[in-house]
Amino acid sequence: MASKTSEGELMYATDPIFSRRFDALERAFSSSPRWQLHTKEMNEETLSSLKVNQSRLMEDIHFTSQWGEGQKWGSASTETGMSRLSLSDADKKARDWFVQATQALGCNTTIDEMGNIFAVRPGIRNDGPPTFVGSHLDTQPTGGRYDGILGVTAGVEMLRVLADNWVETEYPVGVVNWTNEEGARFPISMVSSGVWSGHIPLSTAHSLREVHPGTATLSSELSRIGYLGTVPASHNAVPMAAHFELHIEQGPLLESTSRKIGIVKGVQAYRWYTVTVTGQDCHTGTTDFENRADALLAAAKMILHSHRLATARGALASTGILNLKPGSTNTVPGSVRFSLDIRAPADSTVDMLEADVLADFARIAAGEEVDGISDGCTPGRPCEVSFTTDSVSPAVKFHPDCIHAVTEAAGSALGPEAEKLTMEMVSGAGHDSVYTSKRVPTSMIFVPCRDGISHNPREYTSPEDCALGAQVLLQAVLRYDRMRAERRLTWNTGWQVGA
Amino acid sequence: MASKTSEGELMYATDPIFSRRFDALERAFSSSPRWQLHTKEMNEETLSSLKVNQSRLMEDIHFTSQWGEGQKWGSASTETGMSRLSLSDADKKARDWFVQATQALGCNTTIDEMGNIFAVRPGIRNDGPPTFVGSHLDTQPTGGRYDGILGVTAGVEMLRVLADNWVETEYPVGVVNWTNEEGARFPISMVSSGVWSGHIPLSTAHSLREVHPGTATLSSELSRIGYLGTVPASHNAVPMAAHFELHIEQGPLLESTSRKIGIVKGVQAYRWYTVTVTGQDCHTGTTDFENRADALLAAAKMILHSHRLATARGALASTGILNLKPGSTNTVPGSVRFSLDIRAPADSTVDMLEADVLADFARIAAGEEVDGISDGCTPGRPCEVSFTTDSVSPAVKFHPDCIHAVTEAAGSALGPEAEKLTMEMVSGAGHDSVYTSKRVPTSMIFVPCRDGISHNPREYTSPEDCALGAQVLLQAVLRYDRMRAERRLTWNTGWQVGA
Repeated sequence: MASKTSEGELMYATDPIFSRRFDALERAFSSSPRWQLHTKEMNEETLSSLKVNQSRLMEDIHFTSQWGEGQKWGSASTETGMSRLSLSDADKKARDWFVQATQALGCNTTIDEMGNIFAVRPGIRNDGPPTFVGSHLDTQPTGGRYDGILGVTAGVEMLRVLADNWVETEYPVGVVNWTNEEGARFPISMVSSGVWSGHIPLSTAHSLREVHPGTATLSSELSRIGYLGTVPASHNAVPMAAHFELHIEQGPLLESTSRKIGIVKGVQAYRWYTVTVTGQDCHTGTTDFENRADALLAAAKMILHSHRLATARGALASTGILNLKPGSTNTVPGSVRFSLDIRAPADSTVDMLEADVLADFARIAAGEEVDGISDGCTPGRPCEVSFTTDSVSPAVKFHPDCIHAVTEAAGSALGPEAEKLTMEMVSGAGHDSVYTSKRVPTSMIFVPCRDGISHNPREYTSPEDCALGAQVLLQAVLRYDRMRAERRLTWNTGWQVGA
Repeated sequence: MASKTSEGELMYATDPIFSRRFDALERAFSSSPRWQLHTKEMNEETLSSLKVNQSRLMEDIHFTSQWGEGQKWGSASTETGMSRLSLSDADKKARDWFVQATQALGCNTTIDEMGNIFAVRPGIRNDGPPTFVGSHLDTQPTGGRYDGILGVTAGVEMLRVLADNWVETEYPVGVVNWTNEEGARFPISMVSSGVWSGHIPLSTAHSLREVHPGTATLSSELSRIGYLGTVPASHNAVPMAAHFELHIEQGPLLESTSRKIGIVKGVQAYRWYTVTVTGQDCHTGTTDFENRADALLAAAKMILHSHRLATARGALASTGILNLKPGSTNTVPGSVRFSLDIRAPADSTVDMLEADVLADFARIAAGEEVDGISDGCTPGRPCEVSFTTDSVSPAVKFHPDCIHAVTEAAGSALGPEAEKLTMEMVSGAGHDSVYTSKRVPTSMIFVPCRDGISHNPREYTSPEDCALGAQVLLQAVLRYDRMRAERRLTWNTGWQVGA
């Protein structure tokens, strides 16, 4: 694939507005007849009449899920999870499908040094970078068939709708499949969009070793499956005008409020810590409460208190890992280590919550009373507490123009009920859109997933909801393209990347 | 050893007062001169003048600790823990020493089917069973050199003091080394006193398989090291008049209150449970608090609440084991399993605490407010909770006569400061005295151990405290013997076993 695509690589020249410019891209439709649709000439009715094909979309999802079939959980053939680790043989097959499908739809495909695949459908004018749709085809080892896959297949469906309807966009539009988004095989998630945005060094990414027994690295596996491209993995080498990502919510909010579309305005900030509480092992039968330094009792208070602190700040606090020593029914644990994950839409909230946690955990360990947490307890001996910060991810705000395009698109797809059926949201989890948003206007579209379950074979989004999400994605991209065209006319300027 | 001792086995015949009677025991001192001391003739001064030899006692402790040396923790030669698993080669050597030492002091030794070794020094009259001192020579795999060992060596030291001073007791006195008290190798603790008392079937005990890799059973190891006796392991075959046990406290109460002797009035009741909390795994970033069924948050509330409930009842509640699934920083745990150990001196308190726990844990799981535990929390989805009862150990009350003997003995050993330096206590942990108390008058003597640490190589009791405990033990046995003699004269009846 790499050799094929190296012939069709996108080349950009310097431009006063864009750092690089499309000029080597031959416009495939340059001789198209007048009856072709141009996005900039479409009225609302024409634009809204462009519809994704639900059956075709679902066929793409389920057809491509043959590569990396996971755990079966139901009797229907589609009731099977996915296990398509990045750069595996199964991933190669899904990638090959993506390249063939997009090339068949008139796209040029570029593969960069991270194996990211950019499929670009030319526009009427090519002096600006493409508006991209992106997500990923890799999955968790025990994942489902919607996380990432929906976003990529919806991009392909967008290309199909444009082709079927002879639509010509003002600027190119593209679909990108990002490599190793899950971080499940090579342990940095969103690593390839991170390299593209300049936030993760290529060498770090290339030398990532697979987590499972074996000696493969990300770059050795890229070579092995033929997806080590020569184009730099960089926003300079492969610029974008914008990045839209359709994704399943991976949480229960849309479902529990009977909404259909999440208009994602950003990604919340999060920080991860390891908290270590040190007390003293002692016999549960022979040591009274006064003489205990019970590390687990202190940790239990901290876990409960972190929930209260987060509630007070409108934030989240969660503990997913807890280990204790020595681990015997009749020995009070002298050592407990637990993870703490705090999140909030605003960095300032996370700052405040962190300060709360640091101060109050120390007080709880010391045996001081903190907001009644020790009411009714017997004061014991003090414990010690220490923190390690494992991860810091600042808040991301998506671009108002992209959010606006998604809002308009949802209105078009849902009609008069749109307000009731949509919800402005902040993504709780990270996505490739986090990194693209650092370089280009970005936003996301969420669709409900059953019971909020994700990273699990039972992950499920109904065909109707998949199609609705894809419809909003299509409409958002077209509206964004039209907006670019309008702004060019009005302001006589191009779109400022990252404005 | 077994063959040697089978010749000298104790034989008992039926008697109206005792189910069996000493009559095959030849009194070794039958021709002793008149200047020998008879306990029943001793006044307080004479009795109190009998003193243990601290150096000799410590020499026995440290000499026998050569068999099964454990982890070194300090620079001194005695700053080494013990690893003398029951019926190991090291345990055999310690047993051999015990048999030889007691036989050299004029004792007859009996080994029963559980490998319990009963060393008996004849009295003036032998129509009543011996007053016994007992504990164990086996240790935890990472244990110290005082737990159990002090009790047995103090018994040997008692025999040495009696021999040195030509003391003749009214009734025989004995020292018993109970097999596998720790339950660390064959996983029932106090198993051999449990068989002796009729509470554990011999077949269950004999077929116990060692916990470490291997196929050895308790009976195969008894045979291998030559300690499978032929005398039934039964209070009928080897009766006792009483059982006194000197032990390190294994807790911090004596040390923290600057007391020297614990007068142990009983053993608290305890029950062990496994508590399973089931919620739902979900993503920490994408799931708001309202939509979580956070099993760890519920478990944290339960652990804290159990401490509050126990405080309110004057009882203990402890969690020593906690495991959760799936165990990932950004996944809210859907399943948590933890141990709960509740204890109190009275069974009725444990009953009430159990009822509290069962009711309140269910309410906490369901998300109901219980005594403000969820104040300031965001209500989430309910979890489920279930309980398994793993162990039930009712409260034990020791016998007033034995407690009285210990109190008097402590008074004699400590002088006018006795009241300040002693403490009436309830044992938090189980000991062989729990089972002997079900058949014969029993009590225990505790001495301080540094920082309350036990079941650890660093377990430590000062030589002075070891000797003081041994002195109280000696005095208690002599006083109990004198009391038996006096009662016989006064009431013209023997001692009623188990009265």
